[in-house]
Order: sequence, then C-alpha cells, then structure tokens
Amino acid sequence: VAVVGTGLIGTSIAMAAARAGDTVRGFDTDAEVLRLAAERSGLQPSGNLQECVGGADVVFVCTPVGSIPAVAAECLAAAAEATVTDVGSVKSEVLARVRSLAAEVDQPRFVGGHPMGGSERTGPDSASPSLLDDAVWVLTPGPATDASCLERLEGWVRRVGARPVRMGSERHDRLVAVVSHLPQVASTALMGLAAAEGAGEPELLLLAAGGFRDLTRLAASSPALWRDVLLSNREALAAALDRYSQWLGDLGDMVREGRADELESALAEAKRARLALAAKPSVKAGVALLLVPVPDRPGALAELTSSLAGAGVNIEDLQIVHSPEGGRGTVHLTVAAAAADAAERALAARSFPSVRLA
Amino acid sequence: VAVVGTGLIGTSIAMAAARAGDTVRGFDTDAEVLRLAAERSGLQPSGNLQECVGGADVVFVCTPVGSIPAVAAECLAAAAEATVTDVGSVKSEVLARVRSLAAEVDQPRFVGGHPMGGSERTGPDSASPSLLDDAVWVLTPGPATDASCLERLEGWVRRVGARPVRMGSERHDRLVAVVSHLPQVASTALMGLAAAEGAGEPELLLLAAGGFRDLTRLAASSPALWRDVLLSNREALAAALDRYSQWLGDLGDMVREGRADELESALAEAKRARLALAAKPSVKAGVALLLVPVPDRPGALAELTSSLAGAGVNIEDLQIVHSPEGGRGTVHLTVAAAAADAAERALAARSFPSVRLA
Repeated sequence: VAVVGTGLIGTSIAMAAARAGDTVRGFDTDAEVLRLAAERSGLQPSGNLQECVGGADVVFVCTPVGSIPAVAAECLAAAAEATVTDVGSVKSEVLARVRSLAAEVDQPRFVGGHPMGGSERTGPDSASPSLLDDAVWVLTPGPATDASCLERLEGWVRRVGARPVRMGSERHDRLVAVVSHLPQVASTALMGLAAAEGAGEPELLLLAAGGFRDLTRLAASSPALWRDVLLSNREALAAALDRYSQWLGDLGDMVREGRADELESALAEAKRARLALAAKPSVKAGVALLLVPVPDRPGALAELTSSLAGAGVNIEDLQIVHSPEGGRGTVHLTVAAAAADAAERALAARSFPSVRLA
Repeated sequence: VAVVGTGLIGTSIAMAAARAGDTVRGFDTDAEVLRLAAERSGLQPSGNLQECVGGADVVFVCTPVGSIPAVAAECLAAAAEATVTDVGSVKSEVLARVRSLAAEVDQPRFVGGHPMGGSERTGPDSASPSLLDDAVWVLTPGPATDASCLERLEGWVRRVGARPVRMGSERHDRLVAVVSHLPQVASTALMGLAAAEGAGEPELLLLAAGGFRDLTRLAASSPALWRDVLLSNREALAAALDRYSQWLGDLGDMVREGRADELESALAEAKRARLALAAKPSVKAGVALLLVPVPDRPGALAELTSSLAGAGVNIEDLQIVHSPEGGRGTVHLTVAAAAADAAERALAARSFPSVRLA
C-alpha cells in the first residue's frame, strides 16, 4: 500500500493498513509532515512519488482537492499494476480531470473515493486508525473503472474495518452538497451578516447566545480549503442553496402571514427529524457514543471520568448536553468502539447507567 | 418582590432576590411548579395573583410570551405602588399590548425587560441565581414609562449582580431577530430540507457529520414556544430573513461564477468574526469559561475533573473542542464565576494551565 500525502487522512489510512498487516510506504512534499507521519504510523518514508508508489497494489492519493487529478495521473503512470484511489470530498470534477489527464495511462485503474470518517483536526499528529473503524467509505467508480480494481479496493476497505458504499460521483456530490457544503455556506452567511450588522450595532453580539454560537461554529473553518471544496462542487451546491433559500422563504412567509399552525408543524417536523438523527450513530468512525445521565453536583463528572480512567478507557470526546425540553444534564461520551464494553462496565460499577447509541 | 410564573427564570429571579436580602412572594397557575419553586428558592407561595403582588415593590411577570400582557395588566391593577416588568424574549408587541390593556391603570409603572441569562433548560428544578450573575439584562422602557420606576428597576438589577442595558423595544427586537430568531429558522430550514430530501435518499443522512449536527441542533427546540416567539417578532424576523437570503444569494453567486478570491475573502472575514466571538465572554450568566489544553490519553480528563472536585468546584459545562485548524484538544470548562479563581488554582496545582475568558 502506498499513501501520497500524509496528513490526517493519509496517516490514518497508513495506520489502519499497518494494523491490518499491510506494508505501507508514504510520500509527502512536506518533509516534516512525512517525518511525523512515519513516526506516528510506522510507514516507510519515500524520497519521491515514484519510489513510493512503484510496486504498490493500492495507492491512496490524500492531497488537497485541487492537486488530486495531477497526482493521481502521476501515480497511475508510475505504478503499472496498482489500483489508484483518492480521498477528496468532491468527486465528479476530480474524476473528469483524472480522465482527461490520464488518457494515455491505464485510467480504468482509478476509482474515486471519500472516507466519511473526517475530523475537523488536521495533520499526522491527530491521525488514528479508529478514524476509519466502521466509517462509511464512499467509492465512486467511473464508467471506465475496471470491475476487478473496484472489488480489490472494496475488499481492502472492509479489511481495515470500514464500510464501502458504491455511489455515482454525481449522486455523492449532490448529497454532500446538502449535508456538508450547504451547512458551511449557511454558517458563513450568518456570521458574515451578524459581523456586518454588529459593526454598526456593538450590542448585537452581546445578545448572541448558545444557539448562535452553534450555527456559526463552522464559519471558523479554513477559508482556502473550503474555497476549493465549494468551487469544486459548484453546480450541486448552487442547486442546494436554491432549495435552501426556498425553505427559508416558505418559513419566512409563514411568519410574515402569521400562519401559526403551519409554522408549528414545520418546527415540529424538523424537531422530529433532528431527534431521529441524534439517536442514530454518528458517521464519525470507530467510536461508540454512550449517554450517561449525571447529577449536577461537584465531583459527579470526576467520578464518572475516573471510573473510565481506572478501566484504561480513553475519552475521545465528552459533551454535557442539556435537553432543550428541560430535565437534568446528560453526558455524551465518545469512546473507541473497541473500548465501549469496558466503558459500560466501568460506569455501571460506579452506578452510572449508560445508554449506548453507536 | 413578587414573581408571577415560577419556571426557570422566575425561580432564578426569586433565588437572586433572596440572596440579595429581599422577601419574595411567588405565584404560578401550576400548583406543583409553585411548590417546587418554593422548595428550591424559599419564596413564599401565594394562593392567587392578587395576594402575591399586593404590597410588592417590584413585580416580575415570568409567564410565556403570549400571556404576558394580560398578566402584566392584572399585576398593575393589583399592586398600586409596584414597578411591573416582564422577562419575555420579544418586546415591542408585549409593550403595545400592555399599553392597550392597562390604559385605565398606572401603565407608566410598566418597564419591559429581557434578562439574557437564559438556558435551554426549563422548570424551577434547573433554576439558579447564578443564571443572572453578570448577565446582560435588557430594559426597554416605553415612552410613558416613569423615570423613577426605570431607575428603581435598574438599581434592583445591579443589586442582584446583573448588568442593566437600556434599549428601545424595537431595537431589542431587531437585534434578537438576527442573533436568536434567525438562527432558529435557519436551523429548522436546514433540518427540514435534509429530512425531506432524505426521505427519497436514505443515504443522505448517513453522510451527515459534525458540522451538520451543529447547525441543526436548534431545530430540536420546542415548536410551541418558538412558534409564539417567532410570530411575536414577525416584522423584524422577516426583515432579518431577507437580509440573510441576500447573503446566501451573494455567496451562491460567487460559487456559481467561480469568483474564488471573493469567496475566500468572505470565508476569511466570517472566520475572523467567529474567532473574535469565541474569544468574547458568552452572555451566559454568572459563569466563567476556562480553556484548558489537554493531552489525548486515558485518564487526562479524570485528572482534570478530579482536581476540580477536590477543590469543591462544580462543573457547569464541559466541552472538548478540537480546533478546525488542527492541534490538540482543548477543554472548555464552564464554572460559576465565583468559583473561577479556585478552579484556576486547582488546575494549576495539577499542571493544567488554563486561560480564563469570562
């Protein structure tokens, strides 16, 4: 296995491959990133791309979206037998450009891919094979893709513990436009609007509470990265934005015209859908979510976290969630899937009942 | 002091008043809620509204938005000397209706109010005087409001530890339309759109990750409560929705037309504003926010929370925040403002450096 681009995803793939028994070579144009990735994952660092991919069975192109087509074409040329795939978050444009750049090489060996186990963190330091455990890994074969290359890749994805899902590249792009790219634009627009109006109304942001903060958190993401992602998916995103504006307009009309029953129905339907989503396993890879009701007193959280520390369970994430409907706080604990049983037992032993969601 | 409506805010006000040395009477149409409020805050429960407010200096109307005007008019009639105020999250409509209902009583004694120390929790059980500590408490006197009543109320607000901010009712409504009511509608629209499209595309929500969840969290709020709030502020909200749609449209045009530099600038400007917001104290009342970098290993969180438990510090909220720009995790710890010094010392003693934001 060869990994080109050893950031967060590349290094996580290298770690998952090593765990599954593969020999992994890696290359990155940033020598320091490559050194860190090698240190963290045990991959063999290569001095150049050709050395890295030569003789590989599967090559993962894990570079930023803009450079994927050129790098993938290089990899196809340099590794005569390999199945080459990428991990970019937009697929149609990448596929079309690989097709045009790799015309003279064996382009049927290219399969588009998008593992959905992302993280808002970046860099090899944050990499973990658990990022891919049980993650949905979308594969978008093109019309020219060789069936045996696709199957080889699917088998590999399953072997490292993720879930391959075949999907046309346009369908993939249409879906991520709604659940990933549209939220980014909606968040940026809200923060932009509030910042512009806050310039003349310094008290505006004084009144901004938790809900506003939730909606604008994404606005703090990397501008250069998102510029490229949004522009790579412009048609699907523009269409999603149109449909979103339509929804906003419809809700706005209900408010303007005082259509109370319709407005309440729309709010209730969205609430129902959101609660159903909350009860579903997150696509975040390789983790289990435990819901633990906790009393609101000094020491309760210390007792809870100590019980896990005693069992050697690492807490991947912890949020105290207060139901919008009232009631006591619930701790949402994220732990590695493999540690979930131990976590449940440790909590139960200290009289913390937990509900496991994923 | 008299409190009419002893839910979360009413009971918190009763507790803050009692802490400041006031005698507090309370009334609620729900006898069980009143009993719980009395138990929690020590307020004297009254059998009816007249008994509750008779002889009071200041009356707080803490009922749902729709019933405030009628209840406020009753209170003005029943308490001949009292300054009467409310805590509703929309002001212009309340004020106009109090004016029309209370024409024959002493309406200059009414001052609109909105303490911004809300919580997504409800009910007297979740009440706390710290909800109001250092909270922004908007007061919206009308043209007929008596200056001495306004000053009396401002003095009281300061005495319980909150920050009175005078603001015209229309300005208040215009600002909360942007930072509170618009986010609710934007969240509901996104969840509604995704649910509708997900019905025909079951894989849509499979691809929904953390950013989508952040943006749709508000959609799980109470439909009946928000129907009333949104409809009570329909003009300001409709105008905010128009401006938001304009922002979305502008960003959509940049995407559609591939205006990469402009798009990156808009993303960068929103990021800058969001980071500035994150660095500001939250309006959440009476609490301090401590940022504590933590290593990602079993036991780290247990050590951190145990150090606070050892110092008797209650953790009001805890979130593990991963920077979208990479880097290690940071724990955002919320503790009562009064406990912040003790928390900082306890953390430092266990080699957890912390940065205090509020």
